[in-house]
Amino acid sequence: MKVYKKAILPKGFKASGVACGIKKGRKLDLALFYSELPAKTAAKFTTNKIEAAHIKVDKRYLKHSKLFQAIAVNSGNANCFTGSKGERVAGEFSKSVARALQLNKNKVLVASTGIIGKPLAIDKIKKSVPELVSKLSGKGVEKAKNAILTTDSFAKTVTVKFNIGNQAITLCGVAKGAGMIAPDMATMLSFIFTDANITQGALNKALGICVKQSFNCITVDGCMSTNDSVILLANGASGSKLINSGKSYDLFLEALNKVSLELAKMIVKDGEGASKFIEINVKGANNFAQAKRLGLNIANSNLFKTAMFGENPNFGRIIAAAGASGIGIKEKNIRVKLSSLKKKDISVLLDIKQGKSSATVFTSDLTPKYIKINAEYN
Amino acid sequence: MKVYKKAILPKGFKASGVACGIKKGRKLDLALFYSELPAKTAAKFTTNKIEAAHIKVDKRYLKHSKLFQAIAVNSGNANCFTGSKGERVAGEFSKSVARALQLNKNKVLVASTGIIGKPLAIDKIKKSVPELVSKLSGKGVEKAKNAILTTDSFAKTVTVKFNIGNQAITLCGVAKGAGMIAPDMATMLSFIFTDANITQGALNKALGICVKQSFNCITVDGCMSTNDSVILLANGASGSKLINSGKSYDLFLEALNKVSLELAKMIVKDGEGASKFIEINVKGANNFAQAKRLGLNIANSNLFKTAMFGENPNFGRIIAAAGASGIGIKEKNIRVKLSSLKKKDISVLLDIKQGKSSATVFTSDLTPKYIKINAEYN
Repeated sequence: MKVYKKAILPKGFKASGVACGIKKGRKLDLALFYSELPAKTAAKFTTNKIEAAHIKVDKRYLKHSKLFQAIAVNSGNANCFTGSKGERVAGEFSKSVARALQLNKNKVLVASTGIIGKPLAIDKIKKSVPELVSKLSGKGVEKAKNAILTTDSFAKTVTVKFNIGNQAITLCGVAKGAGMIAPDMATMLSFIFTDANITQGALNKALGICVKQSFNCITVDGCMSTNDSVILLANGASGSKLINSGKSYDLFLEALNKVSLELAKMIVKDGEGASKFIEINVKGANNFAQAKRLGLNIANSNLFKTAMFGENPNFGRIIAAAGASGIGIKEKNIRVKLSSLKKKDISVLLDIKQGKSSATVFTSDLTPKYIKINAEYN
Repeated sequence: MKVYKKAILPKGFKASGVACGIKKGRKLDLALFYSELPAKTAAKFTTNKIEAAHIKVDKRYLKHSKLFQAIAVNSGNANCFTGSKGERVAGEFSKSVARALQLNKNKVLVASTGIIGKPLAIDKIKKSVPELVSKLSGKGVEKAKNAILTTDSFAKTVTVKFNIGNQAITLCGVAKGAGMIAPDMATMLSFIFTDANITQGALNKALGICVKQSFNCITVDGCMSTNDSVILLANGASGSKLINSGKSYDLFLEALNKVSLELAKMIVKDGEGASKFIEINVKGANNFAQAKRLGLNIANSNLFKTAMFGENPNFGRIIAAAGASGIGIKEKNIRVKLSSLKKKDISVLLDIKQGKSSATVFTSDLTPKYIKINAEYN
């Protein structure tokens, strides 16, 4: 299994990115990811009760079919808290791309990221769709990966390759983060493409497992976005034997896990104002959910985060945050270990010595720069 | 009903404060509040699973009796995460004060606030107990109110007076805050004294109601302390008729509510680094708990708090935080109103138009000063 920190699109996928004018200064703000074959699709969305318009539309499409051929994305505007009009324009966005690709309608998923509560300039998007489609190519992912960014300081891509028998299978992930914690900017978006030939059931199962251990185990500021979306397309173009269970499924799961975790970690590393990358390992819990909750409670504690920024090895804050989780931990059983705080990468170990489950969560520190970025944005 | 922003001890109460040497520089760090008569006692403690030693001891005493005559408090050390030894010294603290006051043992409640995880210098305390007792007086509260502080920038006191028939009844509250969000410092402590003649049942009930609407509706940084304690002593010295229900209970409840709310607000105003005092009113909820949860979700959102600091009227952040609460709010029903952000006191109104319940929570903004204070402490 080989991991590349760049985007190498799997067989049968193309991408493109253009500037449609939502962002100022002709910055890239419109991206398209396209599969030549209908691809089996699995997706996970935010659990925030206020959902962006694209999530409402995508969920509706996904109810009727799990076969899609494209994901169209705009950045600069989250199309969220925009009411029924927002939902309508998200649908128009999808349909205009489907038309240009000569696909049936409802075959294009959409995603938006950017400012909340402002109308989406759908006319600008529609005007640029023909150009977006005409530029589709294998190398187009270099533009697409940048066209989905908002306040990110770098594009987030990872590719994993492995074999099933003699067939090479590729998984490629492209994400945007930072925004989860950004000004008015909302959202983490992750798109993963693979040429694996896999059953719908195995695809759903694998995505569920991987999201739980990656995107749902990261936090920058505890603020849940309205737009978070992870979409996985599998078009089968590798021609490998059908993956469903057993060793081939395990390999696929391992590869998907690498892609998800790598993207998730990059999102944390690019957290606004972050000066530290912190890995919190919780051991000795009764189950994964408990371990994760303890980890996230520590990760979201402002007192813990400021201590990390200040390189202050403050055990009391870790213990107080763990105790506040509501999980019945016992003072006398707790062990805490901290790596050197002088480094950029920090690891924290919390062992509560109750059971055999563990979880790892990732976070960043809380810095004056975070406040500066988020207070001054207007 | 008259409200005074100072401490006027009710009939039969005395207090004192001395420096025993836990804090450096002979700062006041040991306080005693004493009732000449056995006082009916109601108390509420943190729900953090890691409890300070004093809470374990007080809970044990309160199981056996609801009549107490004193509360002894040290600041500078939270005596928390100090294991069985910490619990033993908290007991010694109580017993040494009981002896000096010639009371039966278990008649003195104790409280600690300060750094977590360091052994409490019980010898220094014991050596100072005779002086502490000898200095008890009505005016001693001026020293006591300062002796309970840690990183607070001002003492928090409030007195409410009202009549039942011809009898004047006094409630006096003394609190320390700031620490809930402070370096290694933990905790909010509030002590309320009254000469009201009230049944134990009415006392418990009133405290439960008032804590719910005051101390449990404030947040500075969402970090739950290990030491939070609210203790209410009622010694009956006013000689009023026994309060149990009806109009006299309603008056008592109103007075207790004023005291609790005023102390809670002062704690928020003294939140570390705070530059804004923010009142969040949530309307149209199905019940109080739901309204409060929505309010606290907004209050604890770092994106909201930084927006308030930056005087940035960012509705998207309020809505995203409300949506993340897990409560099924409907986008089309939501109304948000913000007062002018240029002022120090800000009010936010969120109406979710589902039911008839409301709640008010209080918080402060998140500022670079908060980070500076909490990162640099060592």
